[in-house]
Amino acid sequence: MESFFSFLEKRVNDCSSLLCVGLDPHVSDLPAPNADGALRFCLDLVERTAPYAAAFKPNAAFFEQFGAPGWAALERVIAAVRERSQRLGSMIPVILDAKRGDISSTADAYARSAFQTLGAHAITLSPYLGRDAVEPFLADPEKGAFLLCKTSNPGAGDLQDLALSGGEPVYVAVARLAQGWNTRDNIGLVVGATQPEALARVRQAAPGMWILAPGVGAQGGDLETALKAGLRADGRGLLLPVSRALSRAANPARAAAELRDRIISIQYQRTK
Amino acid sequence: MESFFSFLEKRVNDCSSLLCVGLDPHVSDLPAPNADGALRFCLDLVERTAPYAAAFKPNAAFFEQFGAPGWAALERVIAAVRERSQRLGSMIPVILDAKRGDISSTADAYARSAFQTLGAHAITLSPYLGRDAVEPFLADPEKGAFLLCKTSNPGAGDLQDLALSGGEPVYVAVARLAQGWNTRDNIGLVVGATQPEALARVRQAAPGMWILAPGVGAQGGDLETALKAGLRADGRGLLLPVSRALSRAANPARAAAELRDRIISIQYQRTK
Repeated sequence: MESFFSFLEKRVNDCSSLLCVGLDPHVSDLPAPNADGALRFCLDLVERTAPYAAAFKPNAAFFEQFGAPGWAALERVIAAVRERSQRLGSMIPVILDAKRGDISSTADAYARSAFQTLGAHAITLSPYLGRDAVEPFLADPEKGAFLLCKTSNPGAGDLQDLALSGGEPVYVAVARLAQGWNTRDNIGLVVGATQPEALARVRQAAPGMWILAPGVGAQGGDLETALKAGLRADGRGLLLPVSRALSRAANPARAAAELRDRIISIQYQRTK
Repeated sequence: MESFFSFLEKRVNDCSSLLCVGLDPHVSDLPAPNADGALRFCLDLVERTAPYAAAFKPNAAFFEQFGAPGWAALERVIAAVRERSQRLGSMIPVILDAKRGDISSTADAYARSAFQTLGAHAITLSPYLGRDAVEPFLADPEKGAFLLCKTSNPGAGDLQDLALSGGEPVYVAVARLAQGWNTRDNIGLVVGATQPEALARVRQAAPGMWILAPGVGAQGGDLETALKAGLRADGRGLLLPVSRALSRAANPARAAAELRDRIISIQYQRTK
């Protein structure tokens, strides 16, 4: 049985890409302001960008806002990634961006929802409730979880930057905890690409872990700075979610290919 | 315009109860293991326990695990609380237990999902992302948010108990932050009833805030200890979620009435 991250690494090998295509059906971007519009928007983006995607990351909120039909659309989008992967001959992992976090039987139900009902391969989670709240998502090593560590929003520091008695900020302690919990190679971290110092600090605290680093593009994070701060020593270990920069491009496939190639050139510079 | 907590206080006056009836359709408790079973289970519990409920708290995970039909069932359960409230002549708030937490437009979408699509009056949230991630849920003062502060699970301390440089644990800092953000009387806290010392400490840090204190009953929290540690000086300010102790009782209405009366007697002892 392979672990979630060996599955992801296989895909990264196949497509030479660290790009994570965000499926964020913002109402203002849709052909129609409903679940069907969200579905069509996402199916189109999956079809066009799949060859360049190390992973797809549908954002649960943008489906959930449409109620039951939104939830049905989310299921169909994930199924479409599976079908598109089969045509490509290379399975593309789906990371459900849901930022869940709850205890015992409730966590079991969320894990069932993400991995069985929806068919996602990984999920984003809040670390606030501690290890036993994360465990239900890790039981199957083929499924993964990315724990929020340092987020890219203005108020991220309110809690995450509080200094602990040893001097470290809370988010570094979260990175260390997550690294200790990662006994099955299926835990990653979420660190905003907008904060390269934090990215470098987390990389130092958790040298081997995969980091999902949102914020390049729309949120203003610089690609090169983020890559230099967050790549692992082997030039990998960083997934870069991009959404609007692709969906709003005149040619999303070309925009994804170009972004992949820019990342490759920075990886190459760094490791040569 | 009234605030969420003045709405809740009005209901507490009407029913003399601090009981929050948890709507947790565990698969093993359902007449059928599907969304329809979850719906029937919840409708029955709403019908029977409404006269004694200060609030209802549906747990999103147990609906979400059934996919789109589960989401449709959740909408119908919340609508049923509204109808039952009308028959009672006293509106009962619905607190969606969803523990969401995300940034900017994603937080907007979750708020829309909870308050508009589903029709809930309040939601539980993770505090990990800071103030701007909570703001979208507070914009309408009639809607409320309960922030996770100290949870009732075994691993709660992994992050929440870390000592800050000033000596306080993280969860006390969260209570203070939340109190500072509560400018519209619509933020509460979640503190497990299983940890009376933590409850007392949060009550001291946030003397006026409402606390949702799960863990009485199934999780082993003692009712009297929790009430003594967590009630406000006015003998209120604490909501006690109970779920299986009611749904599994031979007569859920009687079990709810008895629990309400036990709470009243403890409130009375404390304030006399």
